[in-house]
Amino acid sequence: MRREDEKFMRFALELAKMGKGLTSPNPCVGAVIVKDGKVIGKGYHKGAGRPHAEIYALRQAGRKAHGATLYVSLEPCRHYGKTPPCTNAIISHKIKRVVTAMKDPNPLNDGKGIMLLRRNGVEVKVGVLEDEAKKMNEAFMKFITKKIPFVTVKVAQSLDGKIATHTGDSKWITNEVAREYVHRLRGKVDAILVGVKTVLIDDPLLTARPKDRKIGKQPIRIILDSKLRIPLNARIFSKALSGKVIIATTRLAPKNKLEALKKKNAEILIVGSRDGKVNIKSLMKELVKKDIAHVLVEGGGEAIASVIEAKVVDKVLFFIAPKIIGGRQATTSVEGAGVNRVNRAIELKEVGFESIGDNFLIEGYIKD
Amino acid sequence: MRREDEKFMRFALELAKMGKGLTSPNPCVGAVIVKDGKVIGKGYHKGAGRPHAEIYALRQAGRKAHGATLYVSLEPCRHYGKTPPCTNAIISHKIKRVVTAMKDPNPLNDGKGIMLLRRNGVEVKVGVLEDEAKKMNEAFMKFITKKIPFVTVKVAQSLDGKIATHTGDSKWITNEVAREYVHRLRGKVDAILVGVKTVLIDDPLLTARPKDRKIGKQPIRIILDSKLRIPLNARIFSKALSGKVIIATTRLAPKNKLEALKKKNAEILIVGSRDGKVNIKSLMKELVKKDIAHVLVEGGGEAIASVIEAKVVDKVLFFIAPKIIGGRQATTSVEGAGVNRVNRAIELKEVGFESIGDNFLIEGYIKD
Repeated sequence: MRREDEKFMRFALELAKMGKGLTSPNPCVGAVIVKDGKVIGKGYHKGAGRPHAEIYALRQAGRKAHGATLYVSLEPCRHYGKTPPCTNAIISHKIKRVVTAMKDPNPLNDGKGIMLLRRNGVEVKVGVLEDEAKKMNEAFMKFITKKIPFVTVKVAQSLDGKIATHTGDSKWITNEVAREYVHRLRGKVDAILVGVKTVLIDDPLLTARPKDRKIGKQPIRIILDSKLRIPLNARIFSKALSGKVIIATTRLAPKNKLEALKKKNAEILIVGSRDGKVNIKSLMKELVKKDIAHVLVEGGGEAIASVIEAKVVDKVLFFIAPKIIGGRQATTSVEGAGVNRVNRAIELKEVGFESIGDNFLIEGYIKD
Repeated sequence: MRREDEKFMRFALELAKMGKGLTSPNPCVGAVIVKDGKVIGKGYHKGAGRPHAEIYALRQAGRKAHGATLYVSLEPCRHYGKTPPCTNAIISHKIKRVVTAMKDPNPLNDGKGIMLLRRNGVEVKVGVLEDEAKKMNEAFMKFITKKIPFVTVKVAQSLDGKIATHTGDSKWITNEVAREYVHRLRGKVDAILVGVKTVLIDDPLLTARPKDRKIGKQPIRIILDSKLRIPLNARIFSKALSGKVIIATTRLAPKNKLEALKKKNAEILIVGSRDGKVNIKSLMKELVKKDIAHVLVEGGGEAIASVIEAKVVDKVLFFIAPKIIGGRQATTSVEGAGVNRVNRAIELKEVGFESIGDNFLIEGYIKD
């Protein structure tokens, strides 16, 4: 039974992944209905406002769902959101047994769906492949429970920690495979954040451009720019690009520039300042209000240092190319003031390592 | 036959490794004598002036060597050095067949030993596990053919490329396993080289202190110090330490400090200068004259940049701890001026990766 439960839950998780980048601020969820060892229905959540995974699976199974087992990667909801409760549909389809990977961390649900099912005679098993399920929805989990976005920092550096030469050249430090990886990642987050210096030096598009062009939606592009130094002709304002631009600034911003930027269809977000810079914690709270659950911080060194110092970072991805740039004036991946003592360094946990062609990826979560 | 040859050559290579750190400027060599599938003699070179590996093996085999096969990781010598030619002993012991991993790169030998054996009716096979044998003696190979030491750079850095915080604190960035690895490495090289700033800030001993205390000999400690800023009470001058200290300086060095240092039993090496610094290429040529075949450069960022810019580096070892130090003023692993453009970066080849406890080691050779 346990092996069969894991097998079908793995299938549900695979289905859930297909919604990655589409569902935010909702979680990715997959569902499989099984009867006599055969899959009779399957589905995954495709985006906020659209049916939940269970509904697709139940529709496919129809009357055959009677007496079957439903595998679903997240506890079914029992509350009215943009769609009606899934628990109703499960009960009316006479599902006999529900196997779920994890409880729904959403305080509106949080075990209540499971309770309701049990009270209606449905057998419920919780916790099959729970770790995988939690990891897949780590951004959603933080967003829904802490009301703050999940923040991932991405760095592309040389072996000696440089993200640009002393002249500012940064193209390209990492290899094509690593860059493709980042384009796919961009398609899975809600927003990309960079400092204004990156715009001034690199003038990037900040869009997701994977080779297969398969992207759910373009991420929102956020620029940290306390004094509105961003040029009006920056490429991120190109009309041809889809995806919103948000300029996070402070009261130090000159009024006329502010008006000019609004005409560029940029959203201006005035947040509190801290030492003349955008207060990162306040900014993150504003982003939650816009249903931004996952922010990818891509640089430069000062912007990355700001988010690390503000203690809002959850995960870091360091892409490392086997080359040496050198230079005491060259920009490093994490600038700012830095820690005073080595024993105060920001440590990582659950550290992972991957070969990306001839580059390396070292990733991990920030230790509390 | 091929499998048996590889099996016994692997044994010879294992024996050779036991001499690592003892034999310089000679190579590490191991030898095994086999008759009817049984090992009847074995040996390895234990240091310059002491018998070669073949001699130990032949002594052990004695008369039984008649008609046997000798496996030796390097072509037997046929010239008189500090010891008589091994070819003579091989022929007089009536060895039937010699299997060697590689030709001796020493221009005094370089295939002549093999020729002599063949002319005396000994069957010779060359090239069994050649890559492994060459790698084991990579420092010797460069030293003997190019008359310049093999230079390895070792870095212990945070994920973001820092070797110290902005206050200069550097203890300890990498973990104990990585530091133990370095102590064992120190025991295998001829000299350790650091910049004077490292002495001023860290006041290190620069000795090999592996936990098992098994070290062939202490490396020579070399300090790059163009203006003789080194304090007379630096710990490297402690009388309790074995192993010589060389201060590499220039004509800019004040005379009185020079005399004071000589009294500390430090050897002063005055070499040409380049932009007010020690000319690294000239220094390396001086080190060859002292039979220093392998130099380990341990820091700091400026000293490492100097040797990289002088193009004398062969191999780099980057120990990386999964922690973030940050800081635009913090010292990075490779300082100096650095390259102007990313496409001018120093690239690595034959890149290897290893987990060192919770740290990482990325190593490679500098591409020409």
